[in-house]
Amino acid sequence: MRHFTSVYDLPDLNEALKTAFEVKKNPFAYQHLGKNRTMILIFFNSSLRTRLSTQKAAMNLGMNTMVLNVNQDGWQLESELGVVMDGDKPEHLREAIPVIGSYCDIIGVRAFAQFKSKEDDYQEKIINQFVEYSGVPVVSMEAATRHPLQSFADHFTIEEFKTKEKPKVVLTWAPHPKALPQAVPNSFVEWIRQADYELVVTHPEGYELAPEFMGDIKVEYDQKKAFSGADFIYAKNWASYSSYGQVLSRDRNWTVDEEKMALTNQAKFMHCLPVRRNMVVSDGVIDSPDSIVIQEAANREVSAQAVLKMILEELK
Amino acid sequence: MRHFTSVYDLPDLNEALKTAFEVKKNPFAYQHLGKNRTMILIFFNSSLRTRLSTQKAAMNLGMNTMVLNVNQDGWQLESELGVVMDGDKPEHLREAIPVIGSYCDIIGVRAFAQFKSKEDDYQEKIINQFVEYSGVPVVSMEAATRHPLQSFADHFTIEEFKTKEKPKVVLTWAPHPKALPQAVPNSFVEWIRQADYELVVTHPEGYELAPEFMGDIKVEYDQKKAFSGADFIYAKNWASYSSYGQVLSRDRNWTVDEEKMALTNQAKFMHCLPVRRNMVVSDGVIDSPDSIVIQEAANREVSAQAVLKMILEELK
Amino acid sequence: MRHFTSVYDLPDLNEALKTAFEVKKNPFAYQHLGKNRTMILIFFNSSLRTRLSTQKAAMNLGMNTMVLNVNQDGWQLESELGVVMDGDKPEHLREAIPVIGSYCDIIGVRAFAQFKSKEDDYQEKIINQFVEYSGVPVVSMEAATRHPLQSFADHFTIEEFKTKEKPKVVLTWAPHPKALPQAVPNSFVEWIRQADYELVVTHPEGYELAPEFMGDIKVEYDQKKAFSGADFIYAKNWASYSSYGQVLSRDRNWTVDEEKMALTNQAKFMHCLPVRRNMVVSDGVIDSPDSIVIQEAANREVSAQAVLKMILEELK
Repeated sequence: MRHFTSVYDLPDLNEALKTAFEVKKNPFAYQHLGKNRTMILIFFNSSLRTRLSTQKAAMNLGMNTMVLNVNQDGWQLESELGVVMDGDKPEHLREAIPVIGSYCDIIGVRAFAQFKSKEDDYQEKIINQFVEYSGVPVVSMEAATRHPLQSFADHFTIEEFKTKEKPKVVLTWAPHPKALPQAVPNSFVEWIRQADYELVVTHPEGYELAPEFMGDIKVEYDQKKAFSGADFIYAKNWASYSSYGQVLSRDRNWTVDEEKMALTNQAKFMHCLPVRRNMVVSDGVIDSPDSIVIQEAANREVSAQAVLKMILEELK
Repeated sequence: MRHFTSVYDLPDLNEALKTAFEVKKNPFAYQHLGKNRTMILIFFNSSLRTRLSTQKAAMNLGMNTMVLNVNQDGWQLESELGVVMDGDKPEHLREAIPVIGSYCDIIGVRAFAQFKSKEDDYQEKIINQFVEYSGVPVVSMEAATRHPLQSFADHFTIEEFKTKEKPKVVLTWAPHPKALPQAVPNSFVEWIRQADYELVVTHPEGYELAPEFMGDIKVEYDQKKAFSGADFIYAKNWASYSSYGQVLSRDRNWTVDEEKMALTNQAKFMHCLPVRRNMVVSDGVIDSPDSIVIQEAANREVSAQAVLKMILEELK
Repeated sequence: MRHFTSVYDLPDLNEALKTAFEVKKNPFAYQHLGKNRTMILIFFNSSLRTRLSTQKAAMNLGMNTMVLNVNQDGWQLESELGVVMDGDKPEHLREAIPVIGSYCDIIGVRAFAQFKSKEDDYQEKIINQFVEYSGVPVVSMEAATRHPLQSFADHFTIEEFKTKEKPKVVLTWAPHPKALPQAVPNSFVEWIRQADYELVVTHPEGYELAPEFMGDIKVEYDQKKAFSGADFIYAKNWASYSSYGQVLSRDRNWTVDEEKMALTNQAKFMHCLPVRRNMVVSDGVIDSPDSIVIQEAANREVSAQAVLKMILEELK
C-alpha cells in the first residue's frame, strides 16, 4: 500500500484486519520497519485522538515524528492555482507540500471540509494535492469527505465485540448544535459496506448522504424501527449534504437514549468522539456497560499502526 | 508510587531525595525503565520550565513523549457532569481522559486554579478526574492548589545549598500586578513542613494561606523580622485565599531588595520563576551571586526524573 | 565550532561544505554524536521549513528534540534590562535563557527583526542574549539580520547545480505586499561573498542593503542588465534598510518572469520560500524545470545537519 485515503487503498480488507490484530497484540515487534523513518503529521484543523493515536502508532513502529499545526506554527497556505498572492496567504501548497515531503518518509494530513463549496470539498482538493505533490506516502487523518483511520478502527472494534457472524449495525444521525462534516458517516458507510454485516442507516429527511458513499444501502427514516434488533448503534451528527453544510434539525427526539437502546439486541453503543453528551447521546447510554466508545477510541492507535506498518513494508 | 499530586504520595521523602541525587548524577542510567513507555503532557495552561523539564526528564529515562496543548491543539473540555453539551465545549473530560490514558503509560497534567469558585479549585476537580478516569499514573505539572514537582525541586535545591543541618527557610509574599494562584506557596509550605527546617511564612494581612496547608506554621507579619537570620529566602506572589482570587495589595514595600537581604544570614534567594523583576525582587538581588533561581529551575528536571523513575519502577 | 550565527562562525567554509556533502550522503551515520543529547528549538516567530528541517537534522544525528513556541506555549519574554515588570511580559530573557539552556545541549532560536528600531534589530539583541546567557551552543534559525542556515543551504545548492567553476549569481529584489526583514538577503550576500562566484545584486533605488553586508559588491539598478548571462537567479523581497522597514515599491515590473529569465544563461531559479506566486515570481518560472526551489529547501536539512554535526563534535 502506498497512500491511505479510503478503504479502497487497502490491497485486502481481511489482511488489513489481520494486521490490526497482530499490532494490537505485539505493538513493539516491528520497530525495525520504522528505524530512521520520519512521519510528519500536518493539522489544518484541531485534533485530540487522531493527533495522539497516530503519533503513538508511529512511535510504536520505531519512527520519529514531527507535528505541524499549519495555522499556528506556520502560516495559511494557498490552495488555488494561478492567483496573484498578494493577500494573507504567504505560501502555496504547491511549494509547501513537496518541501514537507522532502523532510520525511510518510505524511499524515488532516484537512476538514470547509463548507464553502460542495464541489471543492467533495473533490478533496487539499489531500489530493498532498498525494500528487508530496513524493511520499500520504495518510488521511480525516479529509473533507472521509475519515478512514476512524472507519478502520470502527470495523476492528465491531470485529472484537461482535457475538454473531453477521451483526446488525445501525448508523444513526443525532442532533448537534453546529454544522459538522459528513466525513465520518460517509467513510463508515463506505467501509462497512465492504464487511459482511447487515447495515442500516437512519436519519431525518434532508440528511441523505452522497450516493457514491451510500451505494445500495437503504435509509430507514424511522429511527425506532432502525434500532429494532440492532447489535451495534453507531451515532453521529452531520450537516446536510443536499442543502450543503446546513443544520436542518436540532431535534432532540433523535438523541440516543435508554428507551431507544431498549429496542435493540442489547446493542453496543459506538461514537467516534468527541461527543456532545445529552445532545447526541444521553449520559445513561454513554455511561452504561454497553458503551464501547473508549475501546473504540483506543483502537485508533491500532488502525493507525496497521496502516503505517503496511506502508512501511513497501517503502524502499 | 502510582500517582504524584502532592508530597503525601511519596512512600518516603528521604528515599525520594536520594533518588533525586542519583538521577542528577546519572541521568541516562535508567533508560531500560522507559523503553517503549510513553508519557503524554497535557497543558490546560501555558508552560515553559515545566513543559521542557518534564519532557526532558522523560526522555532521559528513555520514554517517548507527546505534548497536547488542550485549547490550541484540541478544543475546550467540559468538566461538569449532567450538562446538555450545546455550548462551546465539544468534548467531556469523562471521554477525553480515558482516551488519552489509552495512548500512554503516564499522564502529566497542568490545570491551574480558575478563580471562578474557591470550592471548585480547592476540590481539584480537574486533576482528580484524571486520577479517577485515566487508568494510568498521573503526575501533577501544577494543579489548582499544589505544584509538587516545583516543591520537590525546591527541597532538593535547599539540600544542595544548605550549609547547616537545620537552615531557616522563609517564604515571603511579594507584589505582582495580577492575581496568581496559591499552588506554589501551598505546596511549598506543605512540603517543607515535612523537612526538618525552621520554616517561617511572611505576608501582608489578608494573604493567609489555607489552614490545611499551613498546619501549625505561624505567620510573621513583619517581613523584616522574618528575614532576620534567614538562610533561604523564597519569594512568591499569590492572590488572597480568604478574599478568594483578589489582589489586595501591590505594595512594593514588600519587594525583596538588597536592604532586606542584608538582614539575613547571607541567604540564598529562591523563586520558582517566572519572576517579575523589580516587582517581586530587585535586579540587584536576583543578579547577585546568592541568587540560585537558575539552579533551582535546573533542578526541575531532576525532581521530574526522580518522580517518573519511581512511577516507572512500579509499572508492570 | 561553538555557536552558529553567521558564516564567520565556521572554522573553514570549504570544510563545512564537505561536511554537508557527507551528511547528505549518509544522514544516519553519525548518531553516536547525538546520543543522549537534546536540542531545544525556540520560535519567537512562525516557521515551516526551518522548524521541520532543523528538527529532522537533529533527529538524524540521534538527538532528542523539544520545540517551544514562545508566545503560544509559554508567554511573552521581556528583553530590556532595568524595567519594572508590571506589564504583559511575565518573564525576562535573563532568566528564561539560562533555564532553557539547563535543559539541553544545543539551542536553536528564531527571532525576526521587529521593525520597531533599526538599532535594536541590527544589534541582534535577542540572539546575542542567547549566546551570552544560555551556557550552551546557539544556532540561529533566523535572527534579525541574518539567516545563515538558509545561506549555507543556498551555497550548497549552487555547488550541487553549478556547471562552471565560477557561475554568475544574481540576487534580485522582487515585489511583495508586506514589509519583510533583510535577514535573507543580508546573509546571502555576506555568505556568497566568501565563495568564488561572480555576485551581482539588483534592486530599485532605496532598497540598498546595509554596507556591512554588501562589502565591495556593487548594485546594478537595471534588473535586465543584471540578469544578462546569469547562471543563478536568487529572488527575494525585503523592506528598505535606509527608510527602515518601509515598503517603498510594490512594482510588479520587478517580478521575475519568463521574459527576464530568457536573458540569462538558462539560469536556475532560487528562492528561500515561502514565496508569493505572481508577485515575486511568475507561475511559469517557478513551475519550470529550471526552478530548484524545492531542492534548495530540501537542502535546509543538509545545512542544519552539517552545522549540528560540527557543534556536537566539539561538545564534551
